[in-house]
Amino acid sequence: MSNFPKTERNEVRRVAKNSKYDRQTIYEILDENFVCHVGFSIGEQPFIIPTLYARIDDSIVIHGSHISRMLKNLSKGINVCITVTMVDGIVLARSAFHHSMNYRSVVAFGTGELVENEDERLHALYAISENILKDRWNDCREPNDKELNVTSVLKIKIEEASAKIREGDPIDDAKDYDLSYWAGVLPIETNFDKPIPDAKLDEGIKLPDYLKKY
Amino acid sequence: MSNFPKTERNEVRRVAKNSKYDRQTIYEILDENFVCHVGFSIGEQPFIIPTLYARIDDSIVIHGSHISRMLKNLSKGINVCITVTMVDGIVLARSAFHHSMNYRSVVAFGTGELVENEDERLHALYAISENILKDRWNDCREPNDKELNVTSVLKIKIEEASAKIREGDPIDDAKDYDLSYWAGVLPIETNFDKPIPDAKLDEGIKLPDYLKKY
Repeated sequence: MSNFPKTERNEVRRVAKNSKYDRQTIYEILDENFVCHVGFSIGEQPFIIPTLYARIDDSIVIHGSHISRMLKNLSKGINVCITVTMVDGIVLARSAFHHSMNYRSVVAFGTGELVENEDERLHALYAISENILKDRWNDCREPNDKELNVTSVLKIKIEEASAKIREGDPIDDAKDYDLSYWAGVLPIETNFDKPIPDAKLDEGIKLPDYLKKY
Repeated sequence: MSNFPKTERNEVRRVAKNSKYDRQTIYEILDENFVCHVGFSIGEQPFIIPTLYARIDDSIVIHGSHISRMLKNLSKGINVCITVTMVDGIVLARSAFHHSMNYRSVVAFGTGELVENEDERLHALYAISENILKDRWNDCREPNDKELNVTSVLKIKIEEASAKIREGDPIDDAKDYDLSYWAGVLPIETNFDKPIPDAKLDEGIKLPDYLKKY
């Protein structure tokens, strides 16, 4: 897969050695997550809203109520920034100054477009559902016309993006390696826990296979 | 503690029953996290950058290199949006439409101001460090003048904010409770894992007490 162009907008300037512009790295980070932060501005006022998403080819799709302020604004085609961040650990250096985070993040830029075609809308909703929990879509009631009528689906084609990744040990100044402070990484793990049945779940309904691994 | 005012900017309109405007709820969510998403606009282009932070009274402090594009722009006093999101679980309803997330998020609005006073700067750096890992600041080399000279500290007084919290079981349409799909919550847990010593750590240096609980 090719690289995204490096422009004034997406070029990483701080610790540029940790930056990546190739689609493979960027799409891997996007595909490993399902909550993004969507940024847009109304006049000079920025807003950031967390929301569910999926990547479909070179686009990110999000959905919500047709009366959502965010979706109504984004469907006008204004500029959007979408950021996805995974925090992997706290980097404890010998000096306060070199403390850091291990993380993988993507910052993507584009403009939104309402998805109007019904098949494409349903496919986007399916993709969002599958990105959250694979195999769930086929094990629940599909949306009916009334529900689809109050749902907006927005597609943001990724025009530019960058990833930033930091991993591994702290990097201290050469002379600080003689200091007697503990140094290393405190890893952070995000995991699914045991599924909790709805209080109203019929006792005869067994946990489906796709949830058994948790 | 008092409520933040509810305005055009911070009022939650979607699923408004999950919204909170009281400082206690908002500050608890802010204090439980250490990575925020900072949103700002240059012209009509929004940017969202993940960064470390701490809350000090009614303000959020962030830091970075004095040549950081984000900090240089924010120090001009432009509008800032800061969002903090914790994802607590996937809510599996009987209908695709009522699938949701359990989460706690804060969206805060303000404007940035460079912290110039040296004591206040050092206190902000201390607060950010303590917010990430309590007791670490006193167990590493403090920043020297050269390091402080290349570090900018920005304070954003929170003018308006809202929290949004969803918890508990799925809410399905009454007639869907008869469907035979499994329903409930798949919890998501974020935890620290066992600390990993730096490959260059002197073997004589023991794990400090504040890291032993992990």
